[in-house]
Amino acid sequence: MEALKNHIQQHINIERTALDLLEPYFEHRVLKKKEIVLAEGQVCREKFFVAKGCLQMFFVKPNGIEQTIDFALEHWWTTDFSAFGKHVPSQYTIRSIEPTELYVLSVAQQTALLEALPAMEQYFHRILHIAYAASQHRVKYLYQYSREELYRQFAAQFPAFVQRVPQYMLASFLGFTPEYLSEIRKKPVP
Amino acid sequence: MEALKNHIQQHINIERTALDLLEPYFEHRVLKKKEIVLAEGQVCREKFFVAKGCLQMFFVKPNGIEQTIDFALEHWWTTDFSAFGKHVPSQYTIRSIEPTELYVLSVAQQTALLEALPAMEQYFHRILHIAYAASQHRVKYLYQYSREELYRQFAAQFPAFVQRVPQYMLASFLGFTPEYLSEIRKKPVP
Repeated sequence: MEALKNHIQQHINIERTALDLLEPYFEHRVLKKKEIVLAEGQVCREKFFVAKGCLQMFFVKPNGIEQTIDFALEHWWTTDFSAFGKHVPSQYTIRSIEPTELYVLSVAQQTALLEALPAMEQYFHRILHIAYAASQHRVKYLYQYSREELYRQFAAQFPAFVQRVPQYMLASFLGFTPEYLSEIRKKPVP
Repeated sequence: MEALKNHIQQHINIERTALDLLEPYFEHRVLKKKEIVLAEGQVCREKFFVAKGCLQMFFVKPNGIEQTIDFALEHWWTTDFSAFGKHVPSQYTIRSIEPTELYVLSVAQQTALLEALPAMEQYFHRILHIAYAASQHRVKYLYQYSREELYRQFAAQFPAFVQRVPQYMLASFLGFTPEYLSEIRKKPVP
């Protein structure tokens, strides 16, 4: 659990010995490529810390096409935050896009953990602050840029990621067809 | 501060007497219509709880047009979460759209408050969880619906809000021109 412990220590001031208390609350889960950890329509009882690999979040449109709405790379948390803990079905599917290692925290274990180690409230407060800040900027980008500019911005900010993720999935995330993305990529950068 | 205290008690288990400790950390601010509380380009040192009224968040596009990206109604928190506490300029302007009452928490006061009353970490953890969950759904709607469907969904979910907010601002938030919104509104509901 070194990846998670390091991540916590990056965000809050906590003793290493206190972090040793964490282990029983988390489940270590190893996924192959294309394994589903949360399925659309399934009650959402877990959230996921990516120690290694990458998760894709999507929903299926009425025409059957998978619409990617998010990715979670190393050291990101993801889940259907609305469904988590409400005992309602998830609106999204979460699936690995490459071999992935997770630390999984269930609703019940989160409750127990926060009672045993209240400093973790501070950690989750920080994490969600950062996630929400990123989503404010994402909404801004969606209003501010044309589709082509959106891709260029994204490629400039996350060059390694653009290489790593399948192109049809990246196109879906940016709201393009794969053909349109391929056209943009062939054009010289303005 | 009853509105804020009640809101905290809705989200976490805390004694009313503990909440009496809150008052020195917050500034009560009363705004007329169209007063700015955070300006684009200004270092962001505060976050805002709306006790009464409504705030609009926008940025100015290169063509000079104000692009609304969010609203905060009663009992919502808002700020530029990315800029808050980082001593960097805000990317957004936040302005009242009607007479508004706020409880304002500065970065420095938040630090002091969380030290004095660590239960507030739990409150902010919950609030940001809910805000992030809403933003996940917002991104989903942007991919899922046509512009017209987006308006109908929004009007069905928030009928009072659609009546309350100026129509050009609602159009901007939904990514329409005011003319397009007016056309949609004239059409019979399918």
